Amino acid sequence: MELKVRRIDLEAGGFEIILNEEDAKELGLHPQDRAKVSKKGFTVTAIVNLSQSMIKRGEVGMFVEISEKMGVKNGDKVRITPTMRPLSVDYIKKKIGGEKLTKDEIYAIIKDIVEDNLSVIELASYVTAIYIRGMDMDETEWMTSAMVDTGETIDFEYTVFDVHSIGGVPGNKYAPIAVPIAAAAGLKVPKTSSRAISSAAGTADLMEVLTRVDLNITDIKRIVDEVGATLAWGGAVNLAPADDKIVRVEYPLGIDPHSQVLASVMAKKKAVGADFLVLDIPMGPETKVPDEKTARKYAMDFINLGERLGITVEAAVTYGGQPVGRAIGPAVEAREAMMALEGKPVSTSLIEKATDIAGMLLELGGVAERGEGKELAKDILKSGKARDKFLEIINAQGSRGIEKSDEVPIGKYHAEIHSPEEGYISILSNKAIVKIARAAGAPRDKGAGIILNKKKSEKVDRGEVLYTIYADSKAKLEEAVRVAKMLRPLKIEGMLLERIPSYKK
Amino acid sequence: MELKVRRIDLEAGGFEIILNEEDAKELGLHPQDRAKVSKKGFTVTAIVNLSQSMIKRGEVGMFVEISEKMGVKNGDKVRITPTMRPLSVDYIKKKIGGEKLTKDEIYAIIKDIVEDNLSVIELASYVTAIYIRGMDMDETEWMTSAMVDTGETIDFEYTVFDVHSIGGVPGNKYAPIAVPIAAAAGLKVPKTSSRAISSAAGTADLMEVLTRVDLNITDIKRIVDEVGATLAWGGAVNLAPADDKIVRVEYPLGIDPHSQVLASVMAKKKAVGADFLVLDIPMGPETKVPDEKTARKYAMDFINLGERLGITVEAAVTYGGQPVGRAIGPAVEAREAMMALEGKPVSTSLIEKATDIAGMLLELGGVAERGEGKELAKDILKSGKARDKFLEIINAQGSRGIEKSDEVPIGKYHAEIHSPEEGYISILSNKAIVKIARAAGAPRDKGAGIILNKKKSEKVDRGEVLYTIYADSKAKLEEAVRVAKMLRPLKIEGMLLERIPSYKK
Repeated sequence: MELKVRRIDLEAGGFEIILNEEDAKELGLHPQDRAKVSKKGFTVTAIVNLSQSMIKRGEVGMFVEISEKMGVKNGDKVRITPTMRPLSVDYIKKKIGGEKLTKDEIYAIIKDIVEDNLSVIELASYVTAIYIRGMDMDETEWMTSAMVDTGETIDFEYTVFDVHSIGGVPGNKYAPIAVPIAAAAGLKVPKTSSRAISSAAGTADLMEVLTRVDLNITDIKRIVDEVGATLAWGGAVNLAPADDKIVRVEYPLGIDPHSQVLASVMAKKKAVGADFLVLDIPMGPETKVPDEKTARKYAMDFINLGERLGITVEAAVTYGGQPVGRAIGPAVEAREAMMALEGKPVSTSLIEKATDIAGMLLELGGVAERGEGKELAKDILKSGKARDKFLEIINAQGSRGIEKSDEVPIGKYHAEIHSPEEGYISILSNKAIVKIARAAGAPRDKGAGIILNKKKSEKVDRGEVLYTIYADSKAKLEEAVRVAKMLRPLKIEGMLLERIPSYKK
Repeated sequence: MELKVRRIDLEAGGFEIILNEEDAKELGLHPQDRAKVSKKGFTVTAIVNLSQSMIKRGEVGMFVEISEKMGVKNGDKVRITPTMRPLSVDYIKKKIGGEKLTKDEIYAIIKDIVEDNLSVIELASYVTAIYIRGMDMDETEWMTSAMVDTGETIDFEYTVFDVHSIGGVPGNKYAPIAVPIAAAAGLKVPKTSSRAISSAAGTADLMEVLTRVDLNITDIKRIVDEVGATLAWGGAVNLAPADDKIVRVEYPLGIDPHSQVLASVMAKKKAVGADFLVLDIPMGPETKVPDEKTARKYAMDFINLGERLGITVEAAVTYGGQPVGRAIGPAVEAREAMMALEGKPVSTSLIEKATDIAGMLLELGGVAERGEGKELAKDILKSGKARDKFLEIINAQGSRGIEKSDEVPIGKYHAEIHSPEEGYISILSNKAIVKIARAAGAPRDKGAGIILNKKKSEKVDRGEVLYTIYADSKAKLEEAVRVAKMLRPLKIEGMLLERIPSYKK
């Protein structure tokens, strides 16, 4: 059927068209069916939506993506022909049925995801199915390889090291400290990080306070060649692009299939050619990993998958029962990381974690003997070489002119939260802290965040400051204070936990 | 945040808005998040989409549904506030995790489906989850009741009978024969049917050749009061509307969870107040029910669910290994049904099936003794009373002036498919026949379809007509002939199946 183009100035998130209901019936097309749209021998497959009246008979509504791909303008004629679902929809149904997929089937699914050939309905069904049915290690390996092969890759001529955290603990700014330590010792670390989705700050968010993070592949290659490491945002490079498309569906559903987590992380590492990877697994209440058994499962799966891909993985199970360090939010975390690099006093938890991980890298790289990596990492940190390397990295990426921790601009509004009683901090809720920081504007407002004055098991006097909230706007500060009063992230207990009578009545 | 309305003249299929990416970040909103849209105290919850450039900062794009609901025009100011996902998303995740849902949780999900509070992503995940995890009989009953309670219902003052086929066999026009037989015997049968989704003709499609089928609840009540039965389309009435919304996602995925099939059928029956239901379960290769065991499972589940809902269900497992009767397609099926009613010679399979089912209704209604229903049904059919009742029904619904079978207009183009050899029909493929009829234009083109000259195990001579394809357009006829040549729906075998030598060499 030949129809007249009506351009629709909206992004559909893929190749989508709108037909009048009557024309669609004529063509035997239902909503979410696929049709070929052709003009002068050029054909694009699109997903069909219906309109009762907005799109007239004889018209086809074409969203931005397909209009631009085909270069059509209003009034152009295009031919619409029904076409089959891609085979990958059958493979998704096979997984729904509980069967193991083959390498080719998984490749077909990932390719169709990257090329926008699957609708969000199909994608949601796929994610739900692999969440419920799971994937074994073969399938996970095939999925990882498919994700690598359908995106760009970087070739380095030398051995490449990388670090990654599975996340789940706030304030986890180990990378801006560990990566410069490793690079100062001569290791090559093309580190890319994500922005916060549901947390208060991703590593990319806090690095962006100090430098440009939207590097492309050429930038990353050049900077690692020159200064040994990057601390860039993964979203600007086209490494394993399937991941971004899958996340778009995982996020609203709030589910992340285990095999997909493994594949997404390892595909990005494989795409930058990592040979060695240190994996941070924060464990504790209100993290992704509640106990030792789960941590061990995560670690073994990553190590196993790494072996299959030719990446040597070592896992660090770290304490995640409360925030790492004392700062939560982009700018305050950037400042805390710089303070650590400058040798200024910061929370021991942060120094210990960062040097533990850097030490593992140094040992994997053969720069330190087994068991001696952490000491060497601490020495490098103390020597100021890590700080120098960090400044080299942010300058190479495109510094914002901040050279010292006290130059980092933080939120101009702040509110102190005081302890209503005397006692000891018994609980510090990760989730509540994140909610307050987000209410204050993090991660979008860079200056927004929290600085903890008290952490778990520390003593607090009545009226003493528990934590300070920072914000870039007064309204958001007020909202954050309201959320803080509601959530009470710190619980305080007196020393007298229970009173036992001297004799029974 | 206060934003300026920009109306978007497109249906979104629910309450959806588009925000500029920067505004969304400011609000902490991601794609598929929900936001409250308020104007002068009136608030609607909508799903958020993002635009990089089409929607400017300070604007909110509002699709037709929400624009009309809120009565906004271009330039109006509305307030956008982030809001939580409905609780039903948590219940969907509970089902994804494999847990049994409570009555209240299921009600919340169904209510949110009916009120368009779930996005297609969430809906697709729900359907996939209940397909994989299943629902037990408690959950299925609660779902059915929720589907009834969230739609309209009809109250009849008398005992109500109904018939339903789970489908899967082409040419299944038993209802236009069985329903008038039952009504001629005094039973009340407010029958509603569906249109074809993937078949060549639904009962509603073939009835529409003869009469109006888009009846509302008042029409159905009045017509059943007056003439005893309807043969209407279920889509025009708001009975169990959750079903239509769920089908919208099931169709593109090509999955229909067993518990959802049970609930959808029984909810529509409960909503019209059915007391007795005869359920047709076509069994055989290329149907939904391949074997006796599956048929028994279907039957027992429907009977069990019926008991819980106060509906007496009797199941008829029928032969579905080839089309019922000889006609496939709206007009040719309508003609074949009328021929059967008029006592003209038609395929025995059709008469047997229709009178089997009518007989069961007559026995359930106490009009015939157990074991004598079928004979009575045949008598009523022969007497012409069923034909008279059928004409009463189509006149009451709004006849198109067709009173006799030979007045039914069928496709003006036709092509005969001849047998390439002599032998016996060993296979007649349901799926291939449907594909050819659809290629010819069915169900949209009413005149399109197939008439089988030969059915399974019949003898055929070389060059004899196997079947005739009808179409309303020449191009579609040609396409159907092409599909027919490719699919070869009838397989012919010689009488000599194997040749055994008289002695071994």
